[in-house]
Amino acid sequence: MKRTEIKQLFSAPQDFDGAETTVCGWVRTIRDSKAIGFIELNDGSAFKNLQVILEQGTLSNFSEIVKLNVGSAITVHGRVVLTPEAKQPLEIHAESVEVEGLSTPDYPLQKKRHSLEFLRSIAHLRPRTNTFEAVFRVRSVAAFAIHKFFNERGFVYAHTPLITGSDCEGAGEMFRVTTLDPKDPPLTEDGKVDYSQDFFGKQTSLTVSGQLEGECMAMAFGKIYTFGPTFRAENSNTPRHAAEFWMIEPEIAFADLEDNMELAEEMIKYVLSYVLEQCPQEMAFFNSFYDKGLIERLEGIVSSDFGRVTYTEAVALLEKVKDRFQYPVYWGCDLQTEHERYLTEEIMKRPVFVTDYPKEIKAFYMRLNDDGKTVAAVDLLVPGIGEIIGGSQREERLDVLLSRMKELDLREEDYSWYLDLRRFGGTKHAGYGLGFERLIMYITGVSNIRDVLPFPRTTGSAEY
Amino acid sequence: MKRTEIKQLFSAPQDFDGAETTVCGWVRTIRDSKAIGFIELNDGSAFKNLQVILEQGTLSNFSEIVKLNVGSAITVHGRVVLTPEAKQPLEIHAESVEVEGLSTPDYPLQKKRHSLEFLRSIAHLRPRTNTFEAVFRVRSVAAFAIHKFFNERGFVYAHTPLITGSDCEGAGEMFRVTTLDPKDPPLTEDGKVDYSQDFFGKQTSLTVSGQLEGECMAMAFGKIYTFGPTFRAENSNTPRHAAEFWMIEPEIAFADLEDNMELAEEMIKYVLSYVLEQCPQEMAFFNSFYDKGLIERLEGIVSSDFGRVTYTEAVALLEKVKDRFQYPVYWGCDLQTEHERYLTEEIMKRPVFVTDYPKEIKAFYMRLNDDGKTVAAVDLLVPGIGEIIGGSQREERLDVLLSRMKELDLREEDYSWYLDLRRFGGTKHAGYGLGFERLIMYITGVSNIRDVLPFPRTTGSAEY
Repeated sequence: MKRTEIKQLFSAPQDFDGAETTVCGWVRTIRDSKAIGFIELNDGSAFKNLQVILEQGTLSNFSEIVKLNVGSAITVHGRVVLTPEAKQPLEIHAESVEVEGLSTPDYPLQKKRHSLEFLRSIAHLRPRTNTFEAVFRVRSVAAFAIHKFFNERGFVYAHTPLITGSDCEGAGEMFRVTTLDPKDPPLTEDGKVDYSQDFFGKQTSLTVSGQLEGECMAMAFGKIYTFGPTFRAENSNTPRHAAEFWMIEPEIAFADLEDNMELAEEMIKYVLSYVLEQCPQEMAFFNSFYDKGLIERLEGIVSSDFGRVTYTEAVALLEKVKDRFQYPVYWGCDLQTEHERYLTEEIMKRPVFVTDYPKEIKAFYMRLNDDGKTVAAVDLLVPGIGEIIGGSQREERLDVLLSRMKELDLREEDYSWYLDLRRFGGTKHAGYGLGFERLIMYITGVSNIRDVLPFPRTTGSAEY
Repeated sequence: MKRTEIKQLFSAPQDFDGAETTVCGWVRTIRDSKAIGFIELNDGSAFKNLQVILEQGTLSNFSEIVKLNVGSAITVHGRVVLTPEAKQPLEIHAESVEVEGLSTPDYPLQKKRHSLEFLRSIAHLRPRTNTFEAVFRVRSVAAFAIHKFFNERGFVYAHTPLITGSDCEGAGEMFRVTTLDPKDPPLTEDGKVDYSQDFFGKQTSLTVSGQLEGECMAMAFGKIYTFGPTFRAENSNTPRHAAEFWMIEPEIAFADLEDNMELAEEMIKYVLSYVLEQCPQEMAFFNSFYDKGLIERLEGIVSSDFGRVTYTEAVALLEKVKDRFQYPVYWGCDLQTEHERYLTEEIMKRPVFVTDYPKEIKAFYMRLNDDGKTVAAVDLLVPGIGEIIGGSQREERLDVLLSRMKELDLREEDYSWYLDLRRFGGTKHAGYGLGFERLIMYITGVSNIRDVLPFPRTTGSAEY
């Protein structure tokens, strides 16, 4: 059976004028009036449905077909008729319709508006709705844009490990990975869990970042990026946090914080442009139903220069309006989302890089500035979201890095391989992490991270 | 500082004839003779090194630079000189050399041939060797080829979850993911571990396949693929098994086993062609040092048709030569690697699809054939490796699937969402899984999976 995808029909209607064609898909809506019926058919190749015309005089099984339940899968053979005066460019007049798989009256996606909360409870079916068809296609297109962007620039895609014996940021919020007996684990002589008997012969966790391994690769290839899943065992039930999410982490050698920001700005603009160009119907849908100013705002970002302020300047700006905030703002504080959003939305009115944070609130590997107080860190804040990228120039000076680790009680032996990168031909280098889901929320206007992950994992929830 | 990458120089030598240029990189080799020195410089952008000429009369720090240790990072400013009669197309005559980062005499990658076993013990440095620079670039290029292939064909890239509360194949070899107290987990009244208090409120593991979730996406988008990490807690210490590896799993709706094989064959050929075209130097290196017939064999595969036999036919062919095998071969047996390799290497002399396996040795979701004994499964076997792809047409008939699950004691309630795909507009569909590392081993001729993963995780080993 030679089958034509609906996308092919829509992309070159003239080519199919009067053609005998076979299409497959799922019934989105169906209605009939006397001797004629109408099906809106979707096969997932295109956002828009194909209108199928059923006529009693033509179809031997007309009465069966017009009674189909929404959600049924069918194969339609018929003739394409162009409809230049209608909303859709063409329709198909069915000559035969075959049922591939029936649906039932209790199919949960009947024709009405469903709440996002309800749709989360049927994550296995929600990709069949307009919203999630649009979200997950944009997600796919944006992922390809990321790969294309880095590939065109000669970056090597590095698969850093997910199971790790080390802890990138010294943070504790990690998932343990184990095959030990969950109830009666083997114990050492002094009564601790004997991880030497675990699968990897040591305690292991799910990674929170591929950065340190990414640095190893950058010190060979010059420019690398990772794009893979990352994990946080944080017990935070917010619309912005998931326990499992995807992250992009480029790392560039012979590069400083300025190079890092240029790369990040170029990447963000590239991905936005690509999605706007490749997904016009999906973006028009989000613009109509989720965020009226979405397309205009994204187009504005593509054509504008991102702002740049130091943390010190940012704090000074925010202190002038401190009464607006729930949390206090002062030099040394960790900026809260309310501060970040005010800065990017109200003060700068565009995406803004904030650089040179106090070393106390940033990770040990960030390069110490000459003032001895701040580090060459950078966060990118965007309107509507707040922080979307966090990065830094890395500390390449072995002595400075060692003394910073000592201050933070990090054990040198735990990082010997990381320190080797400074012992053997270390270079100036920098990198950042982009939370992929936050990017998708930003692009689509969808405000809950649970609605941009196909099967979200959050505190208390790991269904499917 | 405007820097030129070595790849740019090599790709258009004429454009740089006589140009003043700045390059950065790592010293691969260095030698000197009286007033002249030679550095082979690599910056990771190109497989080949750039020759840097140092002259005592020109360089103020000549005596310092010629004493540099291998592995040092430097910035060279100088003039490009074309060398059409030499092996390399051009060289650079240094006017100044600045040290970015010193190396030391105990740098482990001195100029000599190191064993792959030794290099595994310094996985953080081995990407700086020819072998691993070539392997990981091919890996990156092949990954991009996969995305490009599916993207060009309208497939949606689906991020299926890694942490899972279900077990795709009913197999037990999974890693547990937990935040419970490892020594004193909370217990229920009847003395079992109380997973309701674990992070997700239930017992969770690392996935062995994204297929079942991929099917949900295919029933909306028609054509999807996954490309992400997968896990096996198998205690097998072989050159072909890793505990964490990457897998590609396409799933296509309105498609049968034949469509599945066509897609797989097209994909394999596409990736091989793309790598051969994009990585000629790396492939020439593998052909010289790892497998003399490699390029010829891969080119042969691109231009040949893959063979096709049923499992029943394959067993009949193998039974004729059963004395050659360690393991017995008979109808109903699970083919061993020795059987698979003999079939593809000796009998078929090309890649071969083996179809229609006995249902007893395949997973519950594979479509039962009309004979009632076999299922519409397919494995792709390739010379030198054995199985590289495993797939099937999926059972779309609810009643048949339910009775198969009953035979295998799978509980209907554990798969209710999967069964919903058959209740609501189910269609004929098929898919397969490709182990990405096996593909890279196949392409490079590198025979141990530990050498195609940047930081391999295997039984007893999760370093870095």
